[in-house]
Amino acid sequence: MSRWDLSATLATCLTLEDVSDAERKPDLNYETPVLQVTSKARENKYEVVCLPLTTEAWKRRWSSMCLLPVDATEEEKGEASKAAELWRVRPGFLKDEVTLSRLDEAEGVIAMVSEWLELDSPDDWIRNDAEIALQQELSYASYLNIATAILPPPRNRDHVASYARAINSCLQATSYISLSVRLPIYNPSVFQPTSPLSSYPSSSSHNSLMSPQTPALVVSDANQDRPQNSETSLNATWEMWDLIRSMCDYNPRLTLTLDLSPALPTSLGVLSKWAAEAVRHIFLPASTFIANMKGYPHRPTIILADVNSGRHARGGERAYSQYIRHLEKTSPTVQAAQKPGTVENFAQGYQDYLQAPLQPLMDNLPSFTYQVFEKDPVKYAQYEEAMYRAFLDRPADGKTLVCVAGAGRGPLVARCLTALERAHRDAKVYVIEKNPNAYVTLQHRQEREWGDKVQLVFGDMRVIDVPEQVDILVSELLGSFGDNELSPECLDGAMRFLKPDGISIPSSYTAHLAPLSSSKLYNEARSGNSEKSLETPYVVMFQAVNILSGLPLSNNHNVRSAKLRFYIPHAGVLHGLAGYFEAVLYGNVGLSIHPQRKDQISKDMLSWFPLFFPFKEPLYLPSDSELQVSIWRLTNNQKVWYEWHAESFLSIPKKPAEGDDAFQPARAPTPSIPTSPSGFPSPLIDSVDPFSNQWRRMSVATNSTSSSADVEYESVKIGHTSLHNPGGRSSWIGL
Amino acid sequence: MSRWDLSATLATCLTLEDVSDAERKPDLNYETPVLQVTSKARENKYEVVCLPLTTEAWKRRWSSMCLLPVDATEEEKGEASKAAELWRVRPGFLKDEVTLSRLDEAEGVIAMVSEWLELDSPDDWIRNDAEIALQQELSYASYLNIATAILPPPRNRDHVASYARAINSCLQATSYISLSVRLPIYNPSVFQPTSPLSSYPSSSSHNSLMSPQTPALVVSDANQDRPQNSETSLNATWEMWDLIRSMCDYNPRLTLTLDLSPALPTSLGVLSKWAAEAVRHIFLPASTFIANMKGYPHRPTIILADVNSGRHARGGERAYSQYIRHLEKTSPTVQAAQKPGTVENFAQGYQDYLQAPLQPLMDNLPSFTYQVFEKDPVKYAQYEEAMYRAFLDRPADGKTLVCVAGAGRGPLVARCLTALERAHRDAKVYVIEKNPNAYVTLQHRQEREWGDKVQLVFGDMRVIDVPEQVDILVSELLGSFGDNELSPECLDGAMRFLKPDGISIPSSYTAHLAPLSSSKLYNEARSGNSEKSLETPYVVMFQAVNILSGLPLSNNHNVRSAKLRFYIPHAGVLHGLAGYFEAVLYGNVGLSIHPQRKDQISKDMLSWFPLFFPFKEPLYLPSDSELQVSIWRLTNNQKVWYEWHAESFLSIPKKPAEGDDAFQPARAPTPSIPTSPSGFPSPLIDSVDPFSNQWRRMSVATNSTSSSADVEYESVKIGHTSLHNPGGRSSWIGL
Repeated sequence: MSRWDLSATLATCLTLEDVSDAERKPDLNYETPVLQVTSKARENKYEVVCLPLTTEAWKRRWSSMCLLPVDATEEEKGEASKAAELWRVRPGFLKDEVTLSRLDEAEGVIAMVSEWLELDSPDDWIRNDAEIALQQELSYASYLNIATAILPPPRNRDHVASYARAINSCLQATSYISLSVRLPIYNPSVFQPTSPLSSYPSSSSHNSLMSPQTPALVVSDANQDRPQNSETSLNATWEMWDLIRSMCDYNPRLTLTLDLSPALPTSLGVLSKWAAEAVRHIFLPASTFIANMKGYPHRPTIILADVNSGRHARGGERAYSQYIRHLEKTSPTVQAAQKPGTVENFAQGYQDYLQAPLQPLMDNLPSFTYQVFEKDPVKYAQYEEAMYRAFLDRPADGKTLVCVAGAGRGPLVARCLTALERAHRDAKVYVIEKNPNAYVTLQHRQEREWGDKVQLVFGDMRVIDVPEQVDILVSELLGSFGDNELSPECLDGAMRFLKPDGISIPSSYTAHLAPLSSSKLYNEARSGNSEKSLETPYVVMFQAVNILSGLPLSNNHNVRSAKLRFYIPHAGVLHGLAGYFEAVLYGNVGLSIHPQRKDQISKDMLSWFPLFFPFKEPLYLPSDSELQVSIWRLTNNQKVWYEWHAESFLSIPKKPAEGDDAFQPARAPTPSIPTSPSGFPSPLIDSVDPFSNQWRRMSVATNSTSSSADVEYESVKIGHTSLHNPGGRSSWIGL
Repeated sequence: MSRWDLSATLATCLTLEDVSDAERKPDLNYETPVLQVTSKARENKYEVVCLPLTTEAWKRRWSSMCLLPVDATEEEKGEASKAAELWRVRPGFLKDEVTLSRLDEAEGVIAMVSEWLELDSPDDWIRNDAEIALQQELSYASYLNIATAILPPPRNRDHVASYARAINSCLQATSYISLSVRLPIYNPSVFQPTSPLSSYPSSSSHNSLMSPQTPALVVSDANQDRPQNSETSLNATWEMWDLIRSMCDYNPRLTLTLDLSPALPTSLGVLSKWAAEAVRHIFLPASTFIANMKGYPHRPTIILADVNSGRHARGGERAYSQYIRHLEKTSPTVQAAQKPGTVENFAQGYQDYLQAPLQPLMDNLPSFTYQVFEKDPVKYAQYEEAMYRAFLDRPADGKTLVCVAGAGRGPLVARCLTALERAHRDAKVYVIEKNPNAYVTLQHRQEREWGDKVQLVFGDMRVIDVPEQVDILVSELLGSFGDNELSPECLDGAMRFLKPDGISIPSSYTAHLAPLSSSKLYNEARSGNSEKSLETPYVVMFQAVNILSGLPLSNNHNVRSAKLRFYIPHAGVLHGLAGYFEAVLYGNVGLSIHPQRKDQISKDMLSWFPLFFPFKEPLYLPSDSELQVSIWRLTNNQKVWYEWHAESFLSIPKKPAEGDDAFQPARAPTPSIPTSPSGFPSPLIDSVDPFSNQWRRMSVATNSTSSSADVEYESVKIGHTSLHNPGGRSSWIGL
């Protein structure tokens, strides 16, 4: 892919004043003031221009109809009411109420919807009339072929459901325009709305008594003090976004414009959750200190605002965009993606793309698939190194018996012979393959490359016989989740021809699970044709995801079920589980796709993307909650499949026992200072070892309480998912 | 309906010992000992017999294969392992391992599945082998045409997900047999499993080291002390049941056998939640004090156990069943159902039956429908009384102008004339009706009964004219939720012909909402053909439901949206909202279907069942949580519809603000004793008045904290539903 694709689109945010300036100082090269400002922005290397859709004249007319001053006379009220009713029946603009009127003016323009629309006003009538006005603006924008409109932010947590309902109604009423909700990354003021007077509803009158306030979050370049951010206020805007996109049923035409105007929080966990969201634009006022541009997953449009305000002496419009391009070029992510041989480069185009896992046991793979996997520069080097070290541990004078079980087109056989040479060892190598097509390739290679040292055996390793038991058994049957390509079942059979004291390469492997949030993957999985597309695991290169918790150890290959506990530090939405594996080949040589260990163990290995187990219904997880995941690997005579399920809990102070009273007011618990910190069952990331007592101990702690401390906590269940893929009805692996 | 239908089915629970007794003392009238005991039970008026399906011999064989003593030799282990593998491949009974072998023996028998199966053992292999044994028992029971099997209770909260997965797997593998989970109403021991030793997994061996323990909850008639029940332990078994039926996707073949063996809790709220569940059987050991049998909604089978144990001196088998029949006969519910004229009698057969609401404005009702509604003994009496009192308040010498808007076949007109006579007032009565068919009936009645006093006007009250403005406007346009049959829209038009100081009957009405739990209604709504059947409100006579919270006041007819807060005292699952209305006709005469007020205001009124707004995905609500419900009444030129949505919250002590660290261990908050109880935002049932400041104040409290107390609480969001019925896509009312 070209460098171009790695760059963010740059946009500038023009104001009504910019257009007025152009009116006052017309350039005769342009037919209209709007064409003048948009063309000049493009000359300054901005690919997109944001422009307010409506003028002050529309705000004045709307306010005169739909709001009324407190001291209005009956006659004034009657007139306004009549005008409003006429407008509600047939909403429309007069020519001076909009900035754009020609198709060429609107080309490449993102419409900024009127800032002052209060879709989440506590007043029913203001909300109602704001929604009609929004429909009118979007209808006009669609008429002008505008592809995207940016909506004013919600400002009132208590009425954000009404905001979301209105947006959903607009999405239903339009057919192609994308709506992007502008949202500051945090905004504690949503819980203390800045226009308290507008909370008095206009009740029986169709007009409100108060004019809406200037929005609390107009983007400005004024310096802002860093507020005291609690986890709650930091999560507040994300929580609103989550509610909006959920109530709009994850509509793909609904995106997010992340407004970086407020001072950035120090807390990185709060920022990382946005990486899993459909961020389409990033709003950057000139005041923002741009720390690092890397890692935004969807290559959003960067909207620069206030670049003409002369805030930086050596600035000017071009300086800002040039600086962003510089930061992009020097980003390690972008650099890695441009370098051949890196995972970042290899994965271009695969990010967040769902693939069905391979079934090499049931299906005979085509030669092309073998070719792709043989190109992995790391995997086979690791295998060779493991075999080399195993050979070194064999006596130098004897003959070692080796079996490569499931050889495919023979890459492990070739590596085996190289390792033997390097280790100065002699061996007889039995090579088993059940794919008759690949077996032809093996015969060719034996004749041309390998000779007598190698003896080919055709058939399924679970049932065929090998002439003698071997010292070393080499196989590569691993899937992204370790045992998901039936390695255990195949090796059960192959173990027959390994000597009791023989060596298996790999010697062990482990599956790992992590809870994951990604509205993108959820939507992708959901768009599958079948109802069951949300009950099938997928192979996917994660990008727009947020891992909600750290990775605990999981089941080893003999354990058929696991129950895992995850501590969730920051509120998020569970959309699925990420599955990884790590294998020990021999000694300290291994393979790993565990995100925190892969670079240490097998950097730049390309053969496996992680596995994604989706959940049908997203599960909301508050901050400081505990997630319990159950996963079963099940089997019958024909197939193997996974089932999965999750429950969520919160640890809260225990109330004293008492009689029942359904209508009593809730009481504040009256806890005292704990005498011992051990009284609290720690929801710390829990590396579960099913062979120790720890699991049992933890499980007792879940619903019991400490007796040694004065404050008692209990784990309260707050939610759960369905059981996924019961009976392997939607995804299974043929035996 | 006959009295028979109101009676519970009685069953007796026989033991292996009962069968052995019959073997020892055979009665030659019966071919087999089982036929002997089951026939005798029927002679004793038990309609159903519960019998263990397997004998001690089966338990011994299973244990010898699947469990091993700690001191078993390698040889013993090998033999057991081999026997177990053979059994796993082809599971089946020997003849002495089952109690039943003939179809006539199994007739009318409920099979009790082996008590000792540990489907929720922490040991993977015990679980695995218990599941195979369960499949084997159910397969054998199906062979004998047995309709119902009762399963041993789950005993281990931490592994109940595995129990549920196994049950679901059995439901998938069988085609008609009903499975009933036996569950004590509470059982704190599930959090401290009684067989701690069995938590050591057998790991690499296929055999466990320990034998499973006797289940913690064998039904016995031993006296049990009342334990100290906290809300948590009281909810624990319900929580397990909720998880099981959810993971089995509300399968209608899965029911509950409520085991009343443990001492009953004093807390009624804990018991009421079971009323909303699919209770199929109630297990009553002779020791149980039977306080009151009323109110079990599904007329479950009552299973009496240990009736032969001679516990009560004057007892004997017949005494117990006679006593239950006596309690039934004297139950107020049963008595009311047998008395004509009561709602209980009228509603027979309508319980939990979903009906689409009427659309009298869009559809012209058939005469039969009018006839049904005219039979209401209370509604028209209330209307007559209201008109009578309104007439009394008119001058005695003048002529009162009345309009009956929407007269149907004329019941209100007749009542109006009676009220005029009673009040000794003279009047001119205009009668409007838009149904041309009903208008024919009205013409007949005018000619035969009413005469000149009445003047008929044909047409839609929204558009037609009436010769003069009237003093009193009478209408009956109310739906179950007040405005859901378009009363506001119709009266908007009719108001034109009411004098400015005229009287409207009804003078006002109010809609009420309550959150509701009912797996039965959820399943009914879900079984509709359309995908949208869970987004349509239904008219339904509630029975198997649990109202999760009290009823707050809601929107008056002019307010188009409401956001309501409900305090949820006991954990439950939200399946929908119950909608009710209450109307003031005139003065203190009214109509009400509000469950706590209807008997006071309009007892035995039959015309309205409540409205049910379902939720697509059940929402889990923990004890002490807060539910926030948003509901919108929306309209465009063609139709009116409702949209609804819910969010859930928990109030928890606030953590101090601090830096971000995704991997730090959770700390116990260190709250101190609050100096003032006012610091806690009370989630008490909140009668919202949108015209007061209260709503605004409450909403601020939701996410802000008190500054006057030392303990700070915050409301943490824990879940939400989808937005239901957006754009009226699945249910709307034509204008």
